[in-house]
Amino acid sequence: MQLAMVGLGRMGSNMVKRLVAHGHECVVFDMSPNVVADLAKTEGVTGATSIEDMIGKLTTPRAIWLMIPAGVVEKTLASIVPHLEKGDILIDGGNSYYIDDISRAKMLAEKGIEYVDVGTSGGVWGLERGYCMMIGGSNATVEHLDPIFKTIAPGKGDAGPTPGRKPGIGTSEDGYLHCGPNGAGHFVKMVHNGIEYGMMASYAEGLGVLKSANIGKHLGEIDAETTPLRDPEHYQYDFDLPEITEVWRRGSVIASWLLDLTAQALIEDPALSKFGGRVSDSGEGRWTIRAGIDEGVPTPVLTASLYERFSSRGEAEFSNKLLSAMRYEFGGHLEKPAEK
Amino acid sequence: MQLAMVGLGRMGSNMVKRLVAHGHECVVFDMSPNVVADLAKTEGVTGATSIEDMIGKLTTPRAIWLMIPAGVVEKTLASIVPHLEKGDILIDGGNSYYIDDISRAKMLAEKGIEYVDVGTSGGVWGLERGYCMMIGGSNATVEHLDPIFKTIAPGKGDAGPTPGRKPGIGTSEDGYLHCGPNGAGHFVKMVHNGIEYGMMASYAEGLGVLKSANIGKHLGEIDAETTPLRDPEHYQYDFDLPEITEVWRRGSVIASWLLDLTAQALIEDPALSKFGGRVSDSGEGRWTIRAGIDEGVPTPVLTASLYERFSSRGEAEFSNKLLSAMRYEFGGHLEKPAEK
Amino acid sequence: MQLAMVGLGRMGSNMVKRLVAHGHECVVFDMSPNVVADLAKTEGVTGATSIEDMIGKLTTPRAIWLMIPAGVVEKTLASIVPHLEKGDILIDGGNSYYIDDISRAKMLAEKGIEYVDVGTSGGVWGLERGYCMMIGGSNATVEHLDPIFKTIAPGKGDAGPTPGRKPGIGTSEDGYLHCGPNGAGHFVKMVHNGIEYGMMASYAEGLGVLKSANIGKHLGEIDAETTPLRDPEHYQYDFDLPEITEVWRRGSVIASWLLDLTAQALIEDPALSKFGGRVSDSGEGRWTIRAGIDEGVPTPVLTASLYERFSSRGEAEFSNKLLSAMRYEFGGHLEKPAEK
Amino acid sequence: MQLAMVGLGRMGSNMVKRLVAHGHECVVFDMSPNVVADLAKTEGVTGATSIEDMIGKLTTPRAIWLMIPAGVVEKTLASIVPHLEKGDILIDGGNSYYIDDISRAKMLAEKGIEYVDVGTSGGVWGLERGYCMMIGGSNATVEHLDPIFKTIAPGKGDAGPTPGRKPGIGTSEDGYLHCGPNGAGHFVKMVHNGIEYGMMASYAEGLGVLKSANIGKHLGEIDAETTPLRDPEHYQYDFDLPEITEVWRRGSVIASWLLDLTAQALIEDPALSKFGGRVSDSGEGRWTIRAGIDEGVPTPVLTASLYERFSSRGEAEFSNKLLSAMRYEFGGHLEKPAEK
Repeated sequence: MQLAMVGLGRMGSNMVKRLVAHGHECVVFDMSPNVVADLAKTEGVTGATSIEDMIGKLTTPRAIWLMIPAGVVEKTLASIVPHLEKGDILIDGGNSYYIDDISRAKMLAEKGIEYVDVGTSGGVWGLERGYCMMIGGSNATVEHLDPIFKTIAPGKGDAGPTPGRKPGIGTSEDGYLHCGPNGAGHFVKMVHNGIEYGMMASYAEGLGVLKSANIGKHLGEIDAETTPLRDPEHYQYDFDLPEITEVWRRGSVIASWLLDLTAQALIEDPALSKFGGRVSDSGEGRWTIRAGIDEGVPTPVLTASLYERFSSRGEAEFSNKLLSAMRYEFGGHLEKPAEK
Repeated sequence: MQLAMVGLGRMGSNMVKRLVAHGHECVVFDMSPNVVADLAKTEGVTGATSIEDMIGKLTTPRAIWLMIPAGVVEKTLASIVPHLEKGDILIDGGNSYYIDDISRAKMLAEKGIEYVDVGTSGGVWGLERGYCMMIGGSNATVEHLDPIFKTIAPGKGDAGPTPGRKPGIGTSEDGYLHCGPNGAGHFVKMVHNGIEYGMMASYAEGLGVLKSANIGKHLGEIDAETTPLRDPEHYQYDFDLPEITEVWRRGSVIASWLLDLTAQALIEDPALSKFGGRVSDSGEGRWTIRAGIDEGVPTPVLTASLYERFSSRGEAEFSNKLLSAMRYEFGGHLEKPAEK
Repeated sequence: MQLAMVGLGRMGSNMVKRLVAHGHECVVFDMSPNVVADLAKTEGVTGATSIEDMIGKLTTPRAIWLMIPAGVVEKTLASIVPHLEKGDILIDGGNSYYIDDISRAKMLAEKGIEYVDVGTSGGVWGLERGYCMMIGGSNATVEHLDPIFKTIAPGKGDAGPTPGRKPGIGTSEDGYLHCGPNGAGHFVKMVHNGIEYGMMASYAEGLGVLKSANIGKHLGEIDAETTPLRDPEHYQYDFDLPEITEVWRRGSVIASWLLDLTAQALIEDPALSKFGGRVSDSGEGRWTIRAGIDEGVPTPVLTASLYERFSSRGEAEFSNKLLSAMRYEFGGHLEKPAEK
Repeated sequence: MQLAMVGLGRMGSNMVKRLVAHGHECVVFDMSPNVVADLAKTEGVTGATSIEDMIGKLTTPRAIWLMIPAGVVEKTLASIVPHLEKGDILIDGGNSYYIDDISRAKMLAEKGIEYVDVGTSGGVWGLERGYCMMIGGSNATVEHLDPIFKTIAPGKGDAGPTPGRKPGIGTSEDGYLHCGPNGAGHFVKMVHNGIEYGMMASYAEGLGVLKSANIGKHLGEIDAETTPLRDPEHYQYDFDLPEITEVWRRGSVIASWLLDLTAQALIEDPALSKFGGRVSDSGEGRWTIRAGIDEGVPTPVLTASLYERFSSRGEAEFSNKLLSAMRYEFGGHLEKPAEK
């Protein structure tokens, strides 16, 4: 079927490639005309020179997929909506906050325009693996778009059937799912990313403990400020992290796709020297914590993983200065300078 | 080659089955004679009626694998060691604390006995999938036992090669790894389990947030003790957790073997009604935190996952009573009774 | 000066008592006529039978202080505002969310009505100690109300001057402070309560560790599910918590008013047997975390203290069941029943 | 009575000053002869040129108080003990691990030497305020030393009697307490410091949230990596932290001695510019967590406060690099450079 794609970054253009490869017709638009021209040329899709141009090239009911940063969805909608007609469909495949979906869907419903929110996971690997999709919207519209979803989704792939599950019921086995009414797609994706933060942090912390398992070889000075390591003979291990992450990939309880990627990153550069350790967070982690707090559901692990990222960027600096200041006030303790 | 197995619980007997199936010779012993007799009968292995009997049936250098609870290793060693000779090998495949490995290995080295610590992951699935093994000990002894490890290990299985990694170097691709000198095997397994706790908690917390995403439908009373939910319209979702965990299995960033099992558990019983929520911890999580603290490496996520387990068993009760008592003292606040 | 008080709960009526004792004139209203009548009788204040009655008894510019649950402020405002005139002043002394202050102040400003948000700390002790007040609003209005604030505030009291601070500048030495424009008062009070949660939890956790310092006397069974306590001889202490909290009150770094109250609670009932350990939270803690997340400032300690409260009320139950379910799936682990 | 003081750092020499001022006789020793000479001159105490010299100047039963870093207690004991006689008393007033107290007391008991462990709080303020002391040892020895403890302790001071507590029973009202057998003193002090970490972090985090309450004035760029601040109008406050900490000192629930010191630090330098934010930890916090874990008692708040200190010193760096590496692998995300 026909689909317009707005936003031809990594994910948008890869989705277009998957769609074209399966015989769908795509009209594409991006703020950068060169990107549009390139994709039109290499994939044989229809390029559009403007939002209006794009809309003019679509048959009704139009289906327009936005694959753009959450921060620009609002103004992009404002430029598209006036040109749409009753029955047209807008799909937000980015990382919008589900609360915005709820209000947008309501606003669009007043104009007879359908809105679908799609949380999409898969990153740079989606072209090859397909994109896991979590979808929110009305039954009729989500069913109407099923050919699109089926094509973008990964399909059954390597993951075997879940024991006890009847095969062939529903689409989740193919990597996409209609999760509920508007907002449901991004809600589930939001929590998905919250879990992702926690899993990533679990590996990172564990490997950090392995990395420092040789500190018994490097004894520090003795002073009243620092507690000496009691048993240096217990910390004499120089672990080979690429090998350890590799062995965990087979037969262990913690095997996962993230572990596969971690093993790959460590093989490329065991010291990870090209990274500084300033870890970004892009919203979903924060919103997951917020939802947990609204619900009264504790999420200590997910929250800790978010705060590690804040701290990695120096956001705890003032609090830390205050701790040093208090220590100075009550105990006369001076800060120790950084080592090395 | 020949191996004695002490402890025929789930893991010990499954390892014997894998070994026998690949032509190794096993002598087996367990505190329960019936278990020994059963395994001897069904698997054609040599049963032993006592430690002494077992040792008498082994050719030197003897290789004896202990697959028993960490709490009884010490006394089992005491019953075996007096009967051993120089060059014999003791393997602890259970969940011992690596610090005990260090002292045991030292003590046994004085008698010329080799000690190997093997952290083993795979649980009830090991018979089918093989066991991921993390090994500590001397080079010569670990190499000597290689045929055993190769057989118990999962082999390459479904996990593809890691891009950038030269194939055929080392054993980690086959799911077992010599991690370092004594204690290294259990150290790596300890951290593995610490990571496991964090990953499990990440899924559990995220699914907890999804489970309560319908609280907007159940509005509580208004009083000075409770903050009202500000936006009940944002929490109107009745999510289908078995479907959501299923969809995440394909193409998403959080796909993992633990997620496969979670999807399976939820298909069997979406309400998890046969569980009370009292979560055990069996040592490695605690030791991982302890190692992190000794090293000065922060592990907020792994620690939070351990403490959730403590709290699930009611271990925070006194602290919580104290919080209620303080609230009463400064604000006259009375505890609200449990709902329902 | 004249002040109307709406809401004669513990805090509202105690404030009225402090005001009357210092010669201010109070008109009072409460949903319960009996409460109004009682206070009118014992304190000689003017009782009002309705909002309209109250407003009629005030001279302009009217000053009306609301001391009511955050959940009913909105509808109370709706019943008062239509009767007010330009220049009148509404004061919210409860625990409103500062974000509501911002929108209310804006809405009221359009009608020429002044709005002042006052975060008030002091609990049941305020009658005796005075109430610490954090105030948001315009300079002119906050200055106009200064006689009221000065009377309700604690004054210098026991707390000595801060070394390095010039005396007589500003009101903070007297226990009240104009913190900034609207919302600033409740923002500072919100964070104050967030800190309160963290401090309370610090004492509660520490005392919990002291309480269980005798577990070495109660050895559990040995099984594969539970790690045995390695050094029971290190946990043989039966600590006297009332005495310990008492000794910390003098000369220690952790002396505080909360510790005074904790010592008092423990003297009354060392086992805290009248509490079940279900700890409420009333909003400010949640909002503090939310503000930290919006700002990107990590608050791991304050957040942990909030989540402890959630967990104490059983809100982690589903997550915990899921952990048990996973453990069963991968390891065949059964839940251990509760002891006793 | 007579007391020998070994270690004339800030705390040791201040204790000597308090003792001398109340008529006790002190013999003093320090590794630095100048320090000994100075104190002998200014306070009129007896200086010792060596451990042997000091011991020779004491009458039996000797009472020797060590006020030295935990890391040098072991070797100092080794130099003293050979010169002691049955009935002599060694007091460790520093920050030793209580587990060391248990083994030291046992070893000394075999020689008939009494051992007393004293956890001491008060920092640089102890000369003026007195030192809060938590004491472990035998009843007879602790009673014998009562005149010393009573003098060093703060006495009743400003802290009023605890309501409900019978006056005149026990010494806790005077700021010192015999907490139990050996190790009990340092156990209670250890937990005291754990609580101190949590309280300090509570203030530091809360003030950090206040400090950044003006971020709405500084809007960042929009990209897919960063979630935009949704409501900048909610973060427009420039709070005056010295004034806010000052106002909380009077009548608020979070008044404390640590808050007094925080207000003082902020008055001196609101930007805390002389601190870098690298916060040391000196052992007791770590040990408190360890005790909680051994006991199975969750201490999420205290633990978070410890980990903040680790992170402030860069100890999470490798873990953070790994998080960035994972983000790069699955999503092609590049690290954002530090701002400024």
